[in-house]
Amino acid sequence: MLKFMLSVFFYPESIAIIGATSDPKKFGNAVTTNILKNKDLTSKVYLVSHGSKEIVGIKTYKSILDIPGEIDIAIILVPANVVESIVDQCIEKKVKGIIIVTSGFGEIDEQGKVKEKIIINKCKEAGIRVIGPNCVGIQNADIGLNASFIQTPPHGEVSMISQSGSFGCAVFYQMERDVIGCSKFANIGNGVDISFDDFLSFFTHDENTKIISIYLETISNGRFFYEKLKQITRIKPVIVLKGGKTAKGMLAAQSHTGSITSNYKILKTAIVQAGAVMCENVSDFITAIKTLSFLVPPEGENVGILTNSGGNAVIFSDNADKFNLKLAEFSDALKEKISPHLISLVQKINPLDMIGVAEEQHYYNVAREMFEDPGIDIVVGSAVIPPFLGMQSDEHFRGLIRAWNETGRKKPLIPLFLFSEGFVELKELAKKEKSPIFYTPHEAVYAIKLLIERKKFLNHKSNSKEN
Amino acid sequence: MLKFMLSVFFYPESIAIIGATSDPKKFGNAVTTNILKNKDLTSKVYLVSHGSKEIVGIKTYKSILDIPGEIDIAIILVPANVVESIVDQCIEKKVKGIIIVTSGFGEIDEQGKVKEKIIINKCKEAGIRVIGPNCVGIQNADIGLNASFIQTPPHGEVSMISQSGSFGCAVFYQMERDVIGCSKFANIGNGVDISFDDFLSFFTHDENTKIISIYLETISNGRFFYEKLKQITRIKPVIVLKGGKTAKGMLAAQSHTGSITSNYKILKTAIVQAGAVMCENVSDFITAIKTLSFLVPPEGENVGILTNSGGNAVIFSDNADKFNLKLAEFSDALKEKISPHLISLVQKINPLDMIGVAEEQHYYNVAREMFEDPGIDIVVGSAVIPPFLGMQSDEHFRGLIRAWNETGRKKPLIPLFLFSEGFVELKELAKKEKSPIFYTPHEAVYAIKLLIERKKFLNHKSNSKEN
Repeated sequence: MLKFMLSVFFYPESIAIIGATSDPKKFGNAVTTNILKNKDLTSKVYLVSHGSKEIVGIKTYKSILDIPGEIDIAIILVPANVVESIVDQCIEKKVKGIIIVTSGFGEIDEQGKVKEKIIINKCKEAGIRVIGPNCVGIQNADIGLNASFIQTPPHGEVSMISQSGSFGCAVFYQMERDVIGCSKFANIGNGVDISFDDFLSFFTHDENTKIISIYLETISNGRFFYEKLKQITRIKPVIVLKGGKTAKGMLAAQSHTGSITSNYKILKTAIVQAGAVMCENVSDFITAIKTLSFLVPPEGENVGILTNSGGNAVIFSDNADKFNLKLAEFSDALKEKISPHLISLVQKINPLDMIGVAEEQHYYNVAREMFEDPGIDIVVGSAVIPPFLGMQSDEHFRGLIRAWNETGRKKPLIPLFLFSEGFVELKELAKKEKSPIFYTPHEAVYAIKLLIERKKFLNHKSNSKEN
Repeated sequence: MLKFMLSVFFYPESIAIIGATSDPKKFGNAVTTNILKNKDLTSKVYLVSHGSKEIVGIKTYKSILDIPGEIDIAIILVPANVVESIVDQCIEKKVKGIIIVTSGFGEIDEQGKVKEKIIINKCKEAGIRVIGPNCVGIQNADIGLNASFIQTPPHGEVSMISQSGSFGCAVFYQMERDVIGCSKFANIGNGVDISFDDFLSFFTHDENTKIISIYLETISNGRFFYEKLKQITRIKPVIVLKGGKTAKGMLAAQSHTGSITSNYKILKTAIVQAGAVMCENVSDFITAIKTLSFLVPPEGENVGILTNSGGNAVIFSDNADKFNLKLAEFSDALKEKISPHLISLVQKINPLDMIGVAEEQHYYNVAREMFEDPGIDIVVGSAVIPPFLGMQSDEHFRGLIRAWNETGRKKPLIPLFLFSEGFVELKELAKKEKSPIFYTPHEAVYAIKLLIERKKFLNHKSNSKEN
């Protein structure tokens, strides 16, 4: 029933945009444009407009009641003071779901809370479910539906629930830069009817959602969240960022969504216990999404590092200590195998500093030996891109990827290219090969820590199941 | 004397590159190319080559002894086993300084240490000072000299001493992306003669160096460093990153430069006490350089924030708590002044969430009031770039910059554009207006913390001077 209910929103056969307009300075235009942009979208789209007879060549209706066919979902973008009368029309039209984008309700004051409650109650009586008010909308990249006023992210396997629409928007900018794709997106807004919990349940069973990422300011039902998380994390990773952790943050959150936030420490303990990833800041949130999108957990914890930079090796090692990572001690067998691939200056210890002359073939040869070595479970392929010796910016990465692919990607590859976000060739290769790139040692060690924790969690779960 | 000594290296009238070659696969080619690339460089450049009679149209000499004129500095790029004989020729030629780029000395083994000691002693006897061996070289962007095999950074006011050449190289990539320019750069290498301390002294008195940034793995003379730092930090900010802080890191550093690193806690305490900035990781290192390059310390500690994103306000507030930043309480006078510039939905509290509709003019008006308000010392102008309402990606930034400029830049502006590194217009404006941009709340609050600390330090220093 729930699944069906949200399916209507994410897979609508017909959509009415109420408040559509050709004025680019209005949200009604942004949503209209976003929906119509994708020519492959099979949902029928109807525009309801007060002012424009035609928008981008499509005829408009004065009212949803004038539309001939059935309507699955109505997206409401009219001013707050007329939302109720528009909802009345939607009820009369027997739509299945409503998204109220319009702001100016419960997030403002008590009066707003009353107003939204009246609207929701009417819909409940009519058996219509509502997303919003005060939201940016939802997206389903699987069918090319962008029913929101924010940008369309690349298509992929991460679904996001965000209690801040603009935060979702910013995360999409970063995901795009990290070539991570999105499956579904939901901004809850005031969440008066369809709640955070509903989206979480839907994404749990959604086959295209491989990872769930959550930006959270408040939780209404802590017990449900905890139990739900415990179920989900056995099947797919869940990554959480909490806004409003501190006294100042909570105060700001209260004026943002009008809700009281929960005690952070208790929440964090519960979330971690349930097997989800609790990120401490926005950068870790992105790193976690990147890591769990592209890499599978390792069998063991022994890290092998190859690099062309001594400084890099030192700083990586400092960071590795932060999370107690285990740097593998190279076996004599491995030393012997890598020896022919190294110049004489190179000391055969971990981290392996092959110095600046190391090029694609060195990276390939040595990484391959590491991937095949039983004493190494995770390979960190690190380089400072050399602007000398006629080297190409992506050649080290190419060598690593080749070794990774040829050994069946059985162990995680952590590519670490310090401060090299500016090299487009790296990004293109990452996109083509579906590989992450990490740009600081912290990102790399955090990624390793998450992968090891995920492995431990899954092992533990499967053990406790057997008992 | 010391000043003069290093002046020869940074302002040479004539340079001999020994080991120049047209083979792009050799470091001798990289250094030659880097030096010759800049047509405005007034230093005379001579090439000494074994193999090539001519390199990029310039005639070569078989030996430095064949060069007719005097030579200020010789840059040696020949293989390790012939370095000593080349140095003998340099001594005979009476060069003033030598940079030995070649590796394979003290960083490798005891034998290497003996070899480099012999070379340095010979030079000492002849009154010639030496940089290296095992270094990437030096740069002086003020005269367009890139006597290294790494890339040329944009010209600016930050000088860097790095105990890792490749780390310097990576930092330049990031500085370029953050439109921060470099004045001088020195990679010490094994530092057998000219040391870290020498460069530090030189940069202290160098007028074009407004900020000194340091990547440090080991310190030979802790007392000197501390006393020197105490002097410098009164005049210009010093930013330090230490590699080899932890057990693993120290081990890696030992195999990198062959030196034992110092106890991190003691070092950190001393560095902070001396008024320098000690960064905990590479990202903070960049943020510190960016902050102190572009912004002057505030008079007080009260932070005012304007944003278009509630989520942003919440996450910023969480981060502000981390460093105990003081969010100003808006005075009634300020509330009255900003009121006409805000839509009715906006609550007049700090952080001020003007919601997604806020555009250039709102940012300008409100920021201007904040800059003029006696209760606010630092203005954080934050936005999630809206992909809707026909907004331009840099319009919020433009509004902020206009308000900042018109109020004489008396208070620091902290522009915070979450995850918006991909917007080129932002970067272009930042470059044109000499403004930093911060991309995460952590960066922004860390910047504020550094500025406040710098102010306190300078106040304290001037007070203790008066007493």
